[in-house]
Amino acid sequence: VDEHGEQWYNYLDWANGGEIMYKMDGFIDISVPLGSRTVTWPGDPPYSASAVLELERDGCAVSGLALTTHSGTHIDAPSHFFAGGATVDQVPLQLLCGPVLVAEVFSAGEIGVEELSGLSFCGVERLIFKTANSGAYPEARPQEPVTLSVEAARYLVERTSVRLVGIDWLSIEAEESVDHLVHKVLLGAASPMVILEGLDLRATAAGSYELICMPLRVEGLDGAPARVVLRG
Amino acid sequence: VDEHGEQWYNYLDWANGGEIMYKMDGFIDISVPLGSRTVTWPGDPPYSASAVLELERDGCAVSGLALTTHSGTHIDAPSHFFAGGATVDQVPLQLLCGPVLVAEVFSAGEIGVEELSGLSFCGVERLIFKTANSGAYPEARPQEPVTLSVEAARYLVERTSVRLVGIDWLSIEAEESVDHLVHKVLLGAASPMVILEGLDLRATAAGSYELICMPLRVEGLDGAPARVVLRG
Repeated sequence: VDEHGEQWYNYLDWANGGEIMYKMDGFIDISVPLGSRTVTWPGDPPYSASAVLELERDGCAVSGLALTTHSGTHIDAPSHFFAGGATVDQVPLQLLCGPVLVAEVFSAGEIGVEELSGLSFCGVERLIFKTANSGAYPEARPQEPVTLSVEAARYLVERTSVRLVGIDWLSIEAEESVDHLVHKVLLGAASPMVILEGLDLRATAAGSYELICMPLRVEGLDGAPARVVLRG
Repeated sequence: VDEHGEQWYNYLDWANGGEIMYKMDGFIDISVPLGSRTVTWPGDPPYSASAVLELERDGCAVSGLALTTHSGTHIDAPSHFFAGGATVDQVPLQLLCGPVLVAEVFSAGEIGVEELSGLSFCGVERLIFKTANSGAYPEARPQEPVTLSVEAARYLVERTSVRLVGIDWLSIEAEESVDHLVHKVLLGAASPMVILEGLDLRATAAGSYELICMPLRVEGLDGAPARVVLRG
């Protein structure tokens, strides 16, 4: 404990007070921390941080960040799968922020039309699936990730008002998929969806919230890492 | 215009509808776009994006991002200047989100105690300075950036309820500063401030708003790039 020790204790104390306020105010941070243990999609380069300036040597600390547009909690834009598709900086904030329904799905494997039919989301624009993935993610890759079926993707596009769809795993589509039809159906709709992946829903109960989804404002790209918060 | 042309037109049309809603809803995006023209702090590595997967070759597009914790719109955490100081992931969301006052300061050079005395921010917790910097930034570096004086930093810490302070340039402190006292006074306060830098305030009038400031949730670091929005 140096001369600043008490100050930082105060800060952290206050931050702990923030934790209490956090519960009172109903902020739930559903973003995955980016660090050395962050689970990475197979084949993608992992997130890493490095020192650009060091406190002792340079007088202040500045860190370099290496990540991808799909590291940790992130959104997919249509240009992820479509040449000439809208890029992440063209996705309106109005779509990313507003009322959201967190729906718990208990099925193993794919979320199909049957599971969707059992949910009530009349008029819902933003839909997040809490699944068995939250038993493992974000600590680890789920053994058999729960994802959306192609039929369910079509159902969402054709039969519902949903425009943003989220899930508690790094992809809403099965890893084995070779044609990526779930992504293509969602992102290629006449009014393209936004896909929100890599959510930490362990502390989130099913129900209605306000979604605040804030991707980095990167120009012209296929997606972006995001800080995502629910307000109860 | 390919077979998807109309779809993307629809999307962008809808996005344009979003622009209209944007004005109606009073969302103002005060984040600087990250791209090849993004202004970088002298000596820091610039933001860059690269292709990890390419649409034609790999079937989908994924981009690599290289940036720093202080690229574009970002927040500074106490550990930017203090060993053992709180890191960006320890800054409570309650501090980053809530009522904010955007105060226009017309002075050239430093914002001093005199300028602060002329402003009314009784009870204000979040204060953003709109300055002459917005005549150049974020398009370019202002010729002589307007920054905060050390005395004004002390005034904010000792005499006001401000806990978050923002500005329309990449640093709240003069580039020539060697002792970084403005940062140290703000970040080293008994209840440390959060500093919000690199804001695009060109379209923002002085007044009261709701601030939504969402830094990436990077673990253990000195700051983080953020998406920052005002709601009128």
